[in-house]
Amino acid sequence: MRMFLRDETAATSREGLATLRPGGVALVEAVDAKALTWAHDVGAEEMRFPPLVSVADLMSIDYFDNFPQLPVLVSRLAKPGGSEPGAWPEPAARVGRDELVDAEYALPSSACYSAYFDLRGAPALAPTRITTRARCYRNESRYEGLRRLWSFEMREIIYLGQADGAAEHLATFKRLLSAWCAVLGLDVAWRTAVDPFFDKRGPRALAQAIAPVKEELLYKGELAIASVNAHRNFFGERCQITDHEGAPVHTSCVGFGLERWVAALLDDGRTAEKALALLRDAR
Amino acid sequence: MRMFLRDETAATSREGLATLRPGGVALVEAVDAKALTWAHDVGAEEMRFPPLVSVADLMSIDYFDNFPQLPVLVSRLAKPGGSEPGAWPEPAARVGRDELVDAEYALPSSACYSAYFDLRGAPALAPTRITTRARCYRNESRYEGLRRLWSFEMREIIYLGQADGAAEHLATFKRLLSAWCAVLGLDVAWRTAVDPFFDKRGPRALAQAIAPVKEELLYKGELAIASVNAHRNFFGERCQITDHEGAPVHTSCVGFGLERWVAALLDDGRTAEKALALLRDAR
Repeated sequence: MRMFLRDETAATSREGLATLRPGGVALVEAVDAKALTWAHDVGAEEMRFPPLVSVADLMSIDYFDNFPQLPVLVSRLAKPGGSEPGAWPEPAARVGRDELVDAEYALPSSACYSAYFDLRGAPALAPTRITTRARCYRNESRYEGLRRLWSFEMREIIYLGQADGAAEHLATFKRLLSAWCAVLGLDVAWRTAVDPFFDKRGPRALAQAIAPVKEELLYKGELAIASVNAHRNFFGERCQITDHEGAPVHTSCVGFGLERWVAALLDDGRTAEKALALLRDAR
Repeated sequence: MRMFLRDETAATSREGLATLRPGGVALVEAVDAKALTWAHDVGAEEMRFPPLVSVADLMSIDYFDNFPQLPVLVSRLAKPGGSEPGAWPEPAARVGRDELVDAEYALPSSACYSAYFDLRGAPALAPTRITTRARCYRNESRYEGLRRLWSFEMREIIYLGQADGAAEHLATFKRLLSAWCAVLGLDVAWRTAVDPFFDKRGPRALAQAIAPVKEELLYKGELAIASVNAHRNFFGERCQITDHEGAPVHTSCVGFGLERWVAALLDDGRTAEKALALLRDAR
């Protein structure tokens, strides 16, 4: 077998896209297994949502107003039958937009939106916890190893129900994450963050100033490896998901950026093998 | 918790996109775990390749000539800063192609291409086995439940090396798959298939007629749940991957369409619970 598959290189990236070698795959899976255990502990059931979201659904949550730069849209050739073999020019690096059809779908930028779209119109929803893992995509102005990727995997544990339950959901996960990082010996701290979803220019910025909606778990003061997010009843309203009294549900979620955990675990020159042993011992 | 999360509905699909509920997620993971065990048994190491492939890489293997209809291309807004809040029209269902940039990347339609792109230019490669699981996308003229999806997951176990090793790799997996399906009691048979990669109009069609390059494992004579594929030295040539003598390597792969296994396991009215028990008993 090739040597490089056995060396300590757990991951590489190019143009914001990561290649995980065996050690990196094992680390991602080990971190996700821990998050999934917690999800089961709080009664969340695992769902796997469609890997594409419709432009119509995204527009229903003002997505293009708030994140015009982020969305990775999908398309296809407008005239696939139009080219005879060899009709394509010599190996080119791109397909012109004139050869594409309009985009009706995008790749998700967060895992949890799909849960709200899936529940669109659900009446009299009892408090519900859902966990899902999704590959997410975000156009960024620059990429940096596993720390800032064009495409990455996110595990989320989502709560839908009443305001107090939504707040308790986040408090629970703040405690679990802080305790686990202490056992792992990772240098982390919580920091209140601005949720880019609540655009500075929009009316929701005021609400953001009143009550923080996002807190990030920062590794070494700079790398957000997890976040807890309170959405109040925003998604309940936009997706017409209501509680037993007919009021839009409140939602909240905790998210784990899986590749960023790998970056933190491999920091300080720790090998994949040592990081895996650390995770095993901390179980 | 909501009732529907506990019912027997393991999966639903709409417009070729599947939503897997807990039973469906468990089934996909159980089938993949079995394939991964086999992969480890034959010495394959697990890789996770970039979830997008470049148009340039695809052109290097004549992809757009052979599969002009299949590729799902990705793009983004050309002028993300151009719209003020509220500038977007009322919730629309699409983003016009004129608002997109040219597409330089596509979503993969098969898991194994990325392995060859990753090894591009590798000299003196010793025989290598790699396994990878990837979310694939294919534009089709129609979709049908879990049996024909726009997006699905594929586990592949890939061989790179000499011609005889490539053939033996496929023979091994044909044996393993036939034996496992017998234990599971699944009605399957192998059928020689035309690999659409080897376009009827192209010169490779002749080679295809001489030696079958693809065999599919058909459930009930109609649903291909796995396939074995011999590529001769095509990818070795195109990606300049050479053996110790400087000759392009021969490659072959076995692929598992994970959602199709779920469809077969849930056939005949079997519940997800019963299908999981069947997989457990057959381990």
